Amino acid sequence: METKTRLLTAADIAKIIEMPDVLKAVETAFREYGLGKTIMPSKLYLELKQYNGDFRAMPAYVEKNAGVKWVSVFPDNPQKGLPTVMAMLILNNPETGFPLAIMDATQITSYRTGAAGGVAAKYLARPESKTLGLIGAGVQARTQLLALINYFQFERIYVWSMRKEDIDSFRASFKDLPIEGASIEKAAGCDIICTTTPARAFIVKREWIKDGAHINAIGADAPGKQELDPKILNNAKVVVDDIAQARHSGEINVAVKHGLFSESNIYSTLGEIVTGAKKGRLGNEITVFDSTGLAIQDIATARMLLEAARQKGVGHDFDVVG
Amino acid sequence: METKTRLLTAADIAKIIEMPDVLKAVETAFREYGLGKTIMPSKLYLELKQYNGDFRAMPAYVEKNAGVKWVSVFPDNPQKGLPTVMAMLILNNPETGFPLAIMDATQITSYRTGAAGGVAAKYLARPESKTLGLIGAGVQARTQLLALINYFQFERIYVWSMRKEDIDSFRASFKDLPIEGASIEKAAGCDIICTTTPARAFIVKREWIKDGAHINAIGADAPGKQELDPKILNNAKVVVDDIAQARHSGEINVAVKHGLFSESNIYSTLGEIVTGAKKGRLGNEITVFDSTGLAIQDIATARMLLEAARQKGVGHDFDVVG
Repeated sequence: METKTRLLTAADIAKIIEMPDVLKAVETAFREYGLGKTIMPSKLYLELKQYNGDFRAMPAYVEKNAGVKWVSVFPDNPQKGLPTVMAMLILNNPETGFPLAIMDATQITSYRTGAAGGVAAKYLARPESKTLGLIGAGVQARTQLLALINYFQFERIYVWSMRKEDIDSFRASFKDLPIEGASIEKAAGCDIICTTTPARAFIVKREWIKDGAHINAIGADAPGKQELDPKILNNAKVVVDDIAQARHSGEINVAVKHGLFSESNIYSTLGEIVTGAKKGRLGNEITVFDSTGLAIQDIATARMLLEAARQKGVGHDFDVVG
Repeated sequence: METKTRLLTAADIAKIIEMPDVLKAVETAFREYGLGKTIMPSKLYLELKQYNGDFRAMPAYVEKNAGVKWVSVFPDNPQKGLPTVMAMLILNNPETGFPLAIMDATQITSYRTGAAGGVAAKYLARPESKTLGLIGAGVQARTQLLALINYFQFERIYVWSMRKEDIDSFRASFKDLPIEGASIEKAAGCDIICTTTPARAFIVKREWIKDGAHINAIGADAPGKQELDPKILNNAKVVVDDIAQARHSGEINVAVKHGLFSESNIYSTLGEIVTGAKKGRLGNEITVFDSTGLAIQDIATARMLLEAARQKGVGHDFDVVG
């Protein structure tokens, strides 16, 4: 019986979070989801229009772990020296409700999103993929790359961003990798493409995408957001993390709303691919993974981190509840 | 600009929580609610039927404070030496989302529930009320009493419980007050009555209630729970904390479901009484306050506690998010 709650700060998480571990936790979460063994109510929004921001409560149960992520999204924050997205997570024992840990979930959010892209590409991209195109060069592009290099040997990584300084700082973060700045067209012509921008009108054209390409569509995470020409969706095998979330706020949401893509054309969830219930890539087709981010990814990652923290003596224990 | 998150453990909260402060915070929360200035989405449930328990995410915005309470309810816990209800709360700056504090919310939950009963009685009970009947003698009965003694001079306090040992321990906790064990009928015959049991069929009969009585109906907090004879509701001025929550899980839920009480017979919310938009007690009528517990009560109380903790140097600051 636990009696202490472990606090893991941002610095604690930074010490122990490793992408290979997150990939394993997230792949297991998608497998459990595909097997129908997870419980995940729809995200609950607290919208503060007067402050141009919102909070989301994301509860889930996966693999004998329960908890909630409480994440805020305030787009004006960078002007105030704060990140747009900040998150905390409470992890509980599902048998009693006892809170096992409270932790920073800002890094968890970016790592688990990268890991979803990694798992999707593992099952959907051609194994011999040699070129990677990153459209957008922020935090999400970094974690996509961190995940993908666990499965692919890239000969060339092309990065496009609206801001040249972002490309420079991106290259500086990965000195050992063959990264170069490129046009959006060149980045979109790669074997694997990751789109991680906040675009609200599509920026990736159909004719730039070659046969056999795999796209991780990461940026769209709210109604009205879109990065890909709807023609790409209609010419591709489209896999989503969760159908309801994808329809509401994923890459497909704008195309569905305008009648340019039908929900019935979704091929499967990533969970169904991971379990083998649905086949992954066939031949030279184009594949798209529409990622919205699931609470089960957060909870599974948090559990893995708590185990790592206990093994390595990281964090502090408190009698938080009484 | 804040850069630290304060952790307040159960022991920290115990040092600083005082009912008069909670009463003030909760009364303000109800006033803001009555003025339509709060934002409070419906509670989100994560139900774990396999473990006979559930979690509830309760987010709210009130008086420039935002946050979420994450509360678990596991009825089998006492057999394992753990409380049925445990809760944690994250308090955020609503302008940026920055997490100002993480705190134990188990005590907050019982104090703010007591405070709601106190505020309700302040506006609805006869000021000259001299006798108090407590039906149920657990944590909720204690905080009802702690709140009510701020407004009333009781000459006699009658406590009824299924378990005699609960009455003894209740009396021992309040040695200076004129408390005695009594039959449920005698407790129900007082000027103010607080029902705090987990009953699922009514235990308080209409004929026991005298004219001019005020009842705080606290126990019913889930579909199927009920403490009062529906005839009492039909002979009384019924005030609720929130109409949607009361219909779903408050004292009225069973009577409404069986057609024994109509939602249209609800007189008002407590917020409307506190603002003066609706009159409180008139003459010798019976009044009932149906309390389900609102997230705004938690968030307002948490804000007050964070201020108290800062003033008194209680708790510890961390760089939780990064």
